[in-house]
Amino acid sequence: MDLGNVRIVLVGPLYGGNVGSVCRAMSNTGITDLVIADPRPLNMLEARMMACHADPILQARQTSDTLAEAVADCGLVIGTSARRGLYRQHAQTPREWTPTILEACATGKVALVFGREDKGLSNEELALCTHIVQIPTTDESMSINLAQAVMICCYELFVASGSYESPEEKSGEAPSELRERMFGLWREMMLDVGFMEPDKADHMMMGLRRILGRGVHTLDDVKIMMGIARQAQWASGASEKRQEGGRRKAEVSER
Amino acid sequence: MDLGNVRIVLVGPLYGGNVGSVCRAMSNTGITDLVIADPRPLNMLEARMMACHADPILQARQTSDTLAEAVADCGLVIGTSARRGLYRQHAQTPREWTPTILEACATGKVALVFGREDKGLSNEELALCTHIVQIPTTDESMSINLAQAVMICCYELFVASGSYESPEEKSGEAPSELRERMFGLWREMMLDVGFMEPDKADHMMMGLRRILGRGVHTLDDVKIMMGIARQAQWASGASEKRQEGGRRKAEVSER
Repeated sequence: MDLGNVRIVLVGPLYGGNVGSVCRAMSNTGITDLVIADPRPLNMLEARMMACHADPILQARQTSDTLAEAVADCGLVIGTSARRGLYRQHAQTPREWTPTILEACATGKVALVFGREDKGLSNEELALCTHIVQIPTTDESMSINLAQAVMICCYELFVASGSYESPEEKSGEAPSELRERMFGLWREMMLDVGFMEPDKADHMMMGLRRILGRGVHTLDDVKIMMGIARQAQWASGASEKRQEGGRRKAEVSER
Repeated sequence: MDLGNVRIVLVGPLYGGNVGSVCRAMSNTGITDLVIADPRPLNMLEARMMACHADPILQARQTSDTLAEAVADCGLVIGTSARRGLYRQHAQTPREWTPTILEACATGKVALVFGREDKGLSNEELALCTHIVQIPTTDESMSINLAQAVMICCYELFVASGSYESPEEKSGEAPSELRERMFGLWREMMLDVGFMEPDKADHMMMGLRRILGRGVHTLDDVKIMMGIARQAQWASGASEKRQEGGRRKAEVSER
């Protein structure tokens, strides 16, 4: 789902570096609409430095005198608040609000509003918000850096929007039959190189299955493991011995 | 669950401000063990400025010459990587790895490893990692600020650790019977003040139920709404009229 209807509103940010970091976080998560309300002078050099490749978002930012103006065309207005207390009892986490926000995004603009680094949002500004979001923190350290707070909210929306797919394994999962051939080959090899005695083989194979059995094996994984076993057999001279009947002897002695 | 076994390892960080921001993010999420591997000179003034109240974490940081040394006592070693490609196909998102990490935390140290701002982790360093984590981003903007990346990983662990509870409503949810009394009172009031004609009352009440029916109503909410209706009735002189039989008339005309 497209996050084109999400607007980030920073109210009176103090530090250019934070504004730049906000732009970079927005860029990472596909959000581009930035409005600065009640602006104060910003160090734009720091802002550009922290924005990195997200400079176009920084350059395209809008400003407005008041928060009311910045969110005038927005349906949902989500305020962030670190303080706990009166009027903030309805606060929920970003993850809890995310479905509501994404639903609203489908039909109109949604504003995520972040207060000043030094004094947050005024009660008047908070009253403009239809929803309050509170980012989980420990009770001992509730004040989150402005750009970090923006990043968490954007990240939750981006993850929930379903635009991201985990990297895919190019090699499929190995089928059981091939995996069993691998274990067979390793059993042979471990006998051939003298790693285990034939009467300990069953027990040792249980251990090897446990070691190699953690997590999925792809076709490539299994081929690598089979290659190692074959090479070890070859290096130990087992394949030659086998041609000379040595292999048969090993199989016999295994019983 | 306690995150005391989580160690944040920064490999060769360049910017003091980032290291400070990392400390603040750790503090927000209850993680305190910070190691800087392969250190380069840092601007400690910037670091302290960005750490804010998390200065104790900054002061208590350990350093080590190599990543191998920094993670020597760790079971799981989770590397972060923005690049996609060979050896990174097994990467999963922070949310996907979180259960694995929390499980490992119960019995031993777990390292979350973050590479250099300018060149990430070397292949040698990546090889020390048992798991690779990749933070979801758009394809167009995959490079995340170091401190932002740490924040997202710490935040996911903190949320999953179950240490945080959403603010609780002090006032419980209103029972249906009280809610219905509220709607009854509003019906009366809206007739009394002349907001609706009796023959439109049922239709209008459906609208009011829709408007007031979004989300949960607490006892406090319902009491406020009942107070408004009573006051409007009083102000419109309806209560007097009712005492004079006016109320009965309204009820009759409602049919």
